Amino acid sequence: MTRSSISRRTVLQTAGGLLVASGMAPASAFAFQNESREEKDKDLIFRSTMPRNAEPELAKLVQSWQTPTELFYVRSHAPNPVIDPKQFKLSVEGLVRRPGTFSLDEIKQMPAVSTTATLTCAGNRRSEYNGSEYPNVPNVSGVQWEGGTIGNATWVGALLATLLKRVEVTEGAKHIWFEGLDEIPKKGSVIGFGGSIPIEKAMVEEGPGAPLLTYTMNGAALTPDHGYPLRMVVPGYIGARSVKWLGRIVVSDRPSPNHYVATAYKIVKKTSPIDWSESGPIYRFPINAAICTPAADSTLAAGSVKLTGYALPSGRNGSSIKDLLISADNGKTWTRGEMTGKKQDFCWQLWNAEVNVNANTKELLLRATDSSGDFMPARIPWNAKGYLRNSWYRLPVNVK
Amino acid sequence: MTRSSISRRTVLQTAGGLLVASGMAPASAFAFQNESREEKDKDLIFRSTMPRNAEPELAKLVQSWQTPTELFYVRSHAPNPVIDPKQFKLSVEGLVRRPGTFSLDEIKQMPAVSTTATLTCAGNRRSEYNGSEYPNVPNVSGVQWEGGTIGNATWVGALLATLLKRVEVTEGAKHIWFEGLDEIPKKGSVIGFGGSIPIEKAMVEEGPGAPLLTYTMNGAALTPDHGYPLRMVVPGYIGARSVKWLGRIVVSDRPSPNHYVATAYKIVKKTSPIDWSESGPIYRFPINAAICTPAADSTLAAGSVKLTGYALPSGRNGSSIKDLLISADNGKTWTRGEMTGKKQDFCWQLWNAEVNVNANTKELLLRATDSSGDFMPARIPWNAKGYLRNSWYRLPVNVK
Repeated sequence: MTRSSISRRTVLQTAGGLLVASGMAPASAFAFQNESREEKDKDLIFRSTMPRNAEPELAKLVQSWQTPTELFYVRSHAPNPVIDPKQFKLSVEGLVRRPGTFSLDEIKQMPAVSTTATLTCAGNRRSEYNGSEYPNVPNVSGVQWEGGTIGNATWVGALLATLLKRVEVTEGAKHIWFEGLDEIPKKGSVIGFGGSIPIEKAMVEEGPGAPLLTYTMNGAALTPDHGYPLRMVVPGYIGARSVKWLGRIVVSDRPSPNHYVATAYKIVKKTSPIDWSESGPIYRFPINAAICTPAADSTLAAGSVKLTGYALPSGRNGSSIKDLLISADNGKTWTRGEMTGKKQDFCWQLWNAEVNVNANTKELLLRATDSSGDFMPARIPWNAKGYLRNSWYRLPVNVK
Repeated sequence: MTRSSISRRTVLQTAGGLLVASGMAPASAFAFQNESREEKDKDLIFRSTMPRNAEPELAKLVQSWQTPTELFYVRSHAPNPVIDPKQFKLSVEGLVRRPGTFSLDEIKQMPAVSTTATLTCAGNRRSEYNGSEYPNVPNVSGVQWEGGTIGNATWVGALLATLLKRVEVTEGAKHIWFEGLDEIPKKGSVIGFGGSIPIEKAMVEEGPGAPLLTYTMNGAALTPDHGYPLRMVVPGYIGARSVKWLGRIVVSDRPSPNHYVATAYKIVKKTSPIDWSESGPIYRFPINAAICTPAADSTLAAGSVKLTGYALPSGRNGSSIKDLLISADNGKTWTRGEMTGKKQDFCWQLWNAEVNVNANTKELLLRATDSSGDFMPARIPWNAKGYLRNSWYRLPVNVK
């Protein structure tokens, strides 16, 4: 049983029959470069540079509710593709009556929608899985993210639903696949990063949960790091579903077989075929929160200390942070944080709090609940790929 | 988008093409009755009688490691079908080179395997979701199970893997569908109860995790309540995958579209199409445990009290209970329970413990961890169908 990913230069099989891959940007339209075109890398901490994976310092991250692009985490699996926007074509195929390609201009001519939405990596806080809490398990590999792979930006684009109506989705369509124009070496082949979302989400066309074919971020064209010239933004879902450098959409009766849907981004105890089959793809992000100031291992004077941070309610319509609590005495007593700034569906909230610390305070603990009934648990089971770390945030401090 | 279940008298569509339903037991081979043929109902507490849904008293349940058939919980969705074993045929279809039917004799002529395995309903402890812990949510409907929908029996049958080799599964097969001969009214149609398991599990042929086409339970023929004449037993998976009155197997490239795979037995906040699509089928059961004696709301004398119960490690090879802890002081201190009786993969374990109670003791708390890293959480989010309740078991008591 091999799990094949969509290979953009091979023949695709879907339930609708054989589809010859087509409509990709011609090879001449993009090339790859190994070095950064970004100028503001000083604002990010690079966990790797080839490919580019970076997160901001937490103190910088919570300076504003809307995250400046230069402070927005970068997650990539291959060098940024360089794409000529004039030659760019988005291909739409599969269970549709009118398959075809769309130029960037054609997409920009569709009604434009502006949405502010938080994206967060499923691997946010992954490095915490490698602590002393899990003594008898292998270290979790992958990018060792701290709590910075989250950001809240304003996106403008066409509704995915508009495009899907244009191509006339046929009966039996249940999932929409996305494929990036990046080129990721994988098991002797090269694949684009793939995502997939259920059609019920894809067809949302009202409110802040509607997925967008996005071409601007925070009022400017997407940068190469964020998917120029076109990316998906799927509010409420893990960042992996907001595929960057979007080049192809396939309408299907099942989730994408791409590696990043069928194998990666799953909660498994072992990276084995049976574990992958038993575990469904992650779509919605769960509640999460972090203390962003003071920094970890800060030396504090005994007495009152001010804290700031972010809290993300679970990715559902109408979900907002309900209780946000901090403890300086290992959970014996809890102090309520105050939510600040804006509260919008599918967006994080910022908070501040003031607690008293003393010489016995070794850690500050943070937990939160949301209005949909989700909460940060005290502990979370280890998983082999280190996803969805959302147990109580624990900030080590030294009090003098 | 309608979600169709396998209708055994209609045409099936799979990726392999159109399959005309065939090989079902002819209509004359089974009839349905609305009344019980069981004689030992006095041993069970019936939550409903049409259909038959019953669990034992917890005190009776833990009298032995191997659960007597008359104390084994009964879960059904329609009246028990009455099946003539001489006319019975199991149909095997889909992505196979040699589709066909198998009589009971043909299945019994395959090498017989005996396995002791625990089955547990995904709805075990469901009634706890309707307590004061969840003040602002609708009551969870469905059978209001307490902690008795679990049992550990010895099953004899042919390996599912033997059958699948016999029919020669073809490339692309990823999931095995099961369909019962029961007739469940559902949305204006009638369907058989359906299950589905990944092929990696279906092909296991060594060790106690191998799925069986089962015809005996605890040394006797299956009773009508437990699937006579043939049922699946899938060790490690929720009971819903161990389909009773098994009449058809379909080999497919995807999970079954049957209602009980695609819609029911999922963790959702709302019973809506998007929630169903975002949530994968439950396969493995998680860790769980209960205090079985004393009974809830018992009046106890202050001082030492003896407790007994069961603990089920998560449904994985080699998983066993690691720590089992009881608190009589609301979690301030914990006393270790002692595991008794046998420890076998995919089976529960029984335990006893002794704790001191006093006038302040309102509840006894139970939690457990297993060797695979799974643990019972202090709290668990509410879900709309009330599945997988495995947070700390809380037994209310009155101490005088």
